[in-house]
Amino acid sequence: MIRVAVLGAGYWGPNLIRNFSACPDTQLVAVCDKMADRLKKVLAPYPGVEALDAPEALWSRGDVDAVAIATPVATHAPLALAALRAGKHVLVEKPMAAGVAEAHAMVAAARDAKRVLMVDHTFLYSPPVRKMKQLLDAGELGDLYYVDSVRINLGLFQHDVNVVWDLAPHDLSIMDYLVGRLPKSVSAFGACHADSRNQIEDVAYLNLDFGDGLTAAFHVNWLSPVKVRHFIVGGSRKSIVYNDLEPAEKIRVYDRGITVSQDPEARRGMLVGYRTGDVWLPHLEGGEPLQTMVRHFAECVGQGKTPLSDGEAGLRVVRILEAAQRSIKNQGARIPLDDAAKE
Amino acid sequence: MIRVAVLGAGYWGPNLIRNFSACPDTQLVAVCDKMADRLKKVLAPYPGVEALDAPEALWSRGDVDAVAIATPVATHAPLALAALRAGKHVLVEKPMAAGVAEAHAMVAAARDAKRVLMVDHTFLYSPPVRKMKQLLDAGELGDLYYVDSVRINLGLFQHDVNVVWDLAPHDLSIMDYLVGRLPKSVSAFGACHADSRNQIEDVAYLNLDFGDGLTAAFHVNWLSPVKVRHFIVGGSRKSIVYNDLEPAEKIRVYDRGITVSQDPEARRGMLVGYRTGDVWLPHLEGGEPLQTMVRHFAECVGQGKTPLSDGEAGLRVVRILEAAQRSIKNQGARIPLDDAAKE
Amino acid sequence: MIRVAVLGAGYWGPNLIRNFSACPDTQLVAVCDKMADRLKKVLAPYPGVEALDAPEALWSRGDVDAVAIATPVATHAPLALAALRAGKHVLVEKPMAAGVAEAHAMVAAARDAKRVLMVDHTFLYSPPVRKMKQLLDAGELGDLYYVDSVRINLGLFQHDVNVVWDLAPHDLSIMDYLVGRLPKSVSAFGACHADSRNQIEDVAYLNLDFGDGLTAAFHVNWLSPVKVRHFIVGGSRKSIVYNDLEPAEKIRVYDRGITVSQDPEARRGMLVGYRTGDVWLPHLEGGEPLQTMVRHFAECVGQGKTPLSDGEAGLRVVRILEAAQRSIKNQGARIPLDDAAKE
Amino acid sequence: MIRVAVLGAGYWGPNLIRNFSACPDTQLVAVCDKMADRLKKVLAPYPGVEALDAPEALWSRGDVDAVAIATPVATHAPLALAALRAGKHVLVEKPMAAGVAEAHAMVAAARDAKRVLMVDHTFLYSPPVRKMKQLLDAGELGDLYYVDSVRINLGLFQHDVNVVWDLAPHDLSIMDYLVGRLPKSVSAFGACHADSRNQIEDVAYLNLDFGDGLTAAFHVNWLSPVKVRHFIVGGSRKSIVYNDLEPAEKIRVYDRGITVSQDPEARRGMLVGYRTGDVWLPHLEGGEPLQTMVRHFAECVGQGKTPLSDGEAGLRVVRILEAAQRSIKNQGARIPLDDAAKE
Repeated sequence: MIRVAVLGAGYWGPNLIRNFSACPDTQLVAVCDKMADRLKKVLAPYPGVEALDAPEALWSRGDVDAVAIATPVATHAPLALAALRAGKHVLVEKPMAAGVAEAHAMVAAARDAKRVLMVDHTFLYSPPVRKMKQLLDAGELGDLYYVDSVRINLGLFQHDVNVVWDLAPHDLSIMDYLVGRLPKSVSAFGACHADSRNQIEDVAYLNLDFGDGLTAAFHVNWLSPVKVRHFIVGGSRKSIVYNDLEPAEKIRVYDRGITVSQDPEARRGMLVGYRTGDVWLPHLEGGEPLQTMVRHFAECVGQGKTPLSDGEAGLRVVRILEAAQRSIKNQGARIPLDDAAKE
Repeated sequence: MIRVAVLGAGYWGPNLIRNFSACPDTQLVAVCDKMADRLKKVLAPYPGVEALDAPEALWSRGDVDAVAIATPVATHAPLALAALRAGKHVLVEKPMAAGVAEAHAMVAAARDAKRVLMVDHTFLYSPPVRKMKQLLDAGELGDLYYVDSVRINLGLFQHDVNVVWDLAPHDLSIMDYLVGRLPKSVSAFGACHADSRNQIEDVAYLNLDFGDGLTAAFHVNWLSPVKVRHFIVGGSRKSIVYNDLEPAEKIRVYDRGITVSQDPEARRGMLVGYRTGDVWLPHLEGGEPLQTMVRHFAECVGQGKTPLSDGEAGLRVVRILEAAQRSIKNQGARIPLDDAAKE
Repeated sequence: MIRVAVLGAGYWGPNLIRNFSACPDTQLVAVCDKMADRLKKVLAPYPGVEALDAPEALWSRGDVDAVAIATPVATHAPLALAALRAGKHVLVEKPMAAGVAEAHAMVAAARDAKRVLMVDHTFLYSPPVRKMKQLLDAGELGDLYYVDSVRINLGLFQHDVNVVWDLAPHDLSIMDYLVGRLPKSVSAFGACHADSRNQIEDVAYLNLDFGDGLTAAFHVNWLSPVKVRHFIVGGSRKSIVYNDLEPAEKIRVYDRGITVSQDPEARRGMLVGYRTGDVWLPHLEGGEPLQTMVRHFAECVGQGKTPLSDGEAGLRVVRILEAAQRSIKNQGARIPLDDAAKE
Repeated sequence: MIRVAVLGAGYWGPNLIRNFSACPDTQLVAVCDKMADRLKKVLAPYPGVEALDAPEALWSRGDVDAVAIATPVATHAPLALAALRAGKHVLVEKPMAAGVAEAHAMVAAARDAKRVLMVDHTFLYSPPVRKMKQLLDAGELGDLYYVDSVRINLGLFQHDVNVVWDLAPHDLSIMDYLVGRLPKSVSAFGACHADSRNQIEDVAYLNLDFGDGLTAAFHVNWLSPVKVRHFIVGGSRKSIVYNDLEPAEKIRVYDRGITVSQDPEARRGMLVGYRTGDVWLPHLEGGEPLQTMVRHFAECVGQGKTPLSDGEAGLRVVRILEAAQRSIKNQGARIPLDDAAKE
């Protein structure tokens, strides 16, 4: 039984509180938030859970094995570093940190402390993303050609982060999980329309080049009149379209590949031949992704395993975000990630 | 009655032949193509139309008022220049020319010859695009924020042009018509997946900046397993989603704007307020866009009017295409269009 | 503050418990269920609520103003009659009773006791049904021609009731609310496929004739591989399509009427002219239907109002159900509802 | 080479003319229609085809092997009987005849004359219906439970026939092809809304009982604001949903069956267990159904084969239509088809 304290009872914290309470492998010991009224309300259905107004007292407590950090992004690194140095395991919301340097420090601290550092890339624990990963790992798609992701909606503006840091971590973490490696370079284009005074981008496009024939594009948008979640993984043999808004058909596998014909005669009329085949909508298992994530955290802590969404994965996402941000501010210049790695 | 010769009986030529034949204001006099067999087959249902194997004889004929050019892109400019200098009016397929310099020369030649030069931007003559233009001109959308266009499909590879020159002219011409001005700069990202030997891009993303708060993005793709035609025009008051694949609901007008609240108290909790309102699917008139286009050409020739899709419009599209191509080959560097204008 | 006891903690009871607890105008006093374990689990988050194993003790208690009955259908009438005779207001799940005679007795008992008898026709309190009612009452549709409802899905089989009594009450109650009167006759067709031994119909079709040009049809199905909720209200001027599965576009208003031309010449070529117009997707207010229903019950009890879904409405739905059942067992014979009324 | 004359150049005739002209196995010799102007216009692109104003002259001509009848329904039987008695093969539009007696006579005449009598049930020659037939014949669906068909649209009213005779032949012929046998009884409900004076039904519902656990329902409607073509075939192992309006996904195969559990313990909680599985969208071959139909006719004539949609199939559809009509006029009474067979 892993004893957990949750830091932050704002937007996402209650979801963690609910899931740690419901998980048979964890015990929710305490929740910490400066806003006493908010905290009291959130903890009403959990009479046995302690309310704290500051996290410092937790570090020395022997009855807390792990903390889950759901505070504003800027505080992720200091809280995680303090917790890890105190010997606590850490689950941290995404994005893992506000910058690459901080994320590096968190990874190093976890390594030094021999503690689990896991990032809540929730989508990795959802049935459609799991199914995509299975199909890719089984080689069903052939060579990977491109990823194209659209995540647009009419949503709440954020004070502190732009649309890239707000929405792109979802899709970048999915892509990172599927592809399993860092792109070579990132270019990005962003614009501030609705709130031009504060220069917070509300529409942005990211283009990633992996240098080996794979490219990935991401469109994130706060201003759309319609909600769209469309994620294509295009391969030489098959392609997958993942639409998270479809209630019953989130994953479609298209048995339509592209065959570049080698026969010179055939190449005269057409450079590339097409096949058009069946479409398959695999059945997806049920399961609440957040509950699966919480159980995976408990299992990693309990058995010393490395999480699917470990600190390294979180760091890769932050490296892409930071490079994208730099590209936006530099007229879309291509930012190499190899250099970034040396920071 | 405008007497017309069509140059080229390949992929698109037969559509022009059919429409010039059906138009009450035009008379199809001759069709020219080097491939005699192809030409004979195409002209079978049109016994009164002359078959020619080369266009030169047309220039001096007094019974031909205009030519319609549906040949490969590289030949557009020489044919159009010869025709204009011979005093013929010209309708030319899109893209108007293979480069900006050629397109400039075509516009100049038409001006000098006092003849109509029109580009077949067919979508401008379609009911949904007409309806969008009406709504924009009536101020229904408020300030324009962004255009986002996705045109992806599993289609035939081209020998001579990449996906940008093949697919983007459609959407760029629609955007140009709606917005009525040239962007300040273009950046683009493209990749060659299926046919890497020939370095013909099969997936590309274009980002246009108008310098006044308006941005436009275009995704064109030859490799998708699904066909998508999605065109969003986002405004401060309303937004339009145009889906050309919807049989009965191509245009949706969303009465959902974004209101930046000026009240400091209100701004504390949320920087930007949202309204969510009705959606309206306006009835669209019928009408074959190509027939409307052909009649518009006849009307412009007959009455000395300037076409909606005149040489200037065609030139603006070619300037964007050429800048996008240069950006793709320069790591996505932002290409200013003011400089390009001085070429 | 209305003090309420809920009878039944099975499938639907917990929804009532949650909503009576959350409603500012009601106080949940007690919940009654024979299954002690189930009841204990359901009441865990509600420490102040009393658990009872039988309802009889409630009748004489002065601290209970109303009961909400969520027990099996066969027990609705005896419980409601006992409660009403004891001076309690009653909210009862749908269908109100297992037969017309029982429903009549419940209505009479409420009248005699001068107490509120309300049926939980939840859909009447949902935003899309409210919007349809507004449009009909405003005369937007012209003359009503037909209602066509399809409610099919892969769902749980019931022991005690067939698909008609299980699914049709939803749509019949919506239709009854919109139309506000009883049909003249009912015919129905039903079949038992999956569980032929028990002769419980799993697919059924109901046809209602109002005798004045309005007809209504209902397809209910437990065996479908796809879930469908499609409800059309066709009028002479406009028509509404209500699709409850659409997340953001549940109601579509079609501005397409049918105009029977009176001109004899025009009638020669075509008996009926068509207009095709705009489609309008009105914005719907939010609001949890069950919470709206519970508040309406509290308001009716507190202010002596007649509920939208009063006993008479519940009785009309039961009369149609019973007639449909009789028709199914009589080879689809048309069952007049005037006769049924005399029972 | 089968030499064919087409009777009737109205609504459907030109489609037959075009397809017999394009078919390599048939030669279109003559077309017959009383309306000389209409006929002249229709035959303009076919200079070698003879125009006739009456069919009688055809019967004795040796250069005509077969006639295709696309005249009003009331004339199908007399024309077909005359042609068969003159030794011509006959293709007749659907519905085959205006009544069962006439259809019987046509079948008998074809038998006596040893000539092919085929009904143009075009959908049987379409790729999605072919695919459904393949799957059924391969036993993929298990036991057939039900067919449910919805064909509704805003269409042209007919003078001479109601919505049942106009629209239902399509779906009845598909069902007949799939199921391969006649139902035991038919009940139907129809109503006249828009044109009540002439008592032509514009909305109707048919229910067919095969007496062996299979039932089939058909909803046909001229008044709908939306076009729907939805055809479900439900089986014990799999189910098919056929949506003819889907451009690329007309057929969906649902791997979701219903398993009636035999274990008494399991039956306590739930009478019937559900499986939920994959969905499969099989690739469909291309091919114009009407061209396939015309070639099949030519093949049957040339090789003495029995057509898929022979006179017996046409007769079965007419028997259902006539029984449905009688049921509508008799308050929905169930009409046995065994009795009808004895007429």
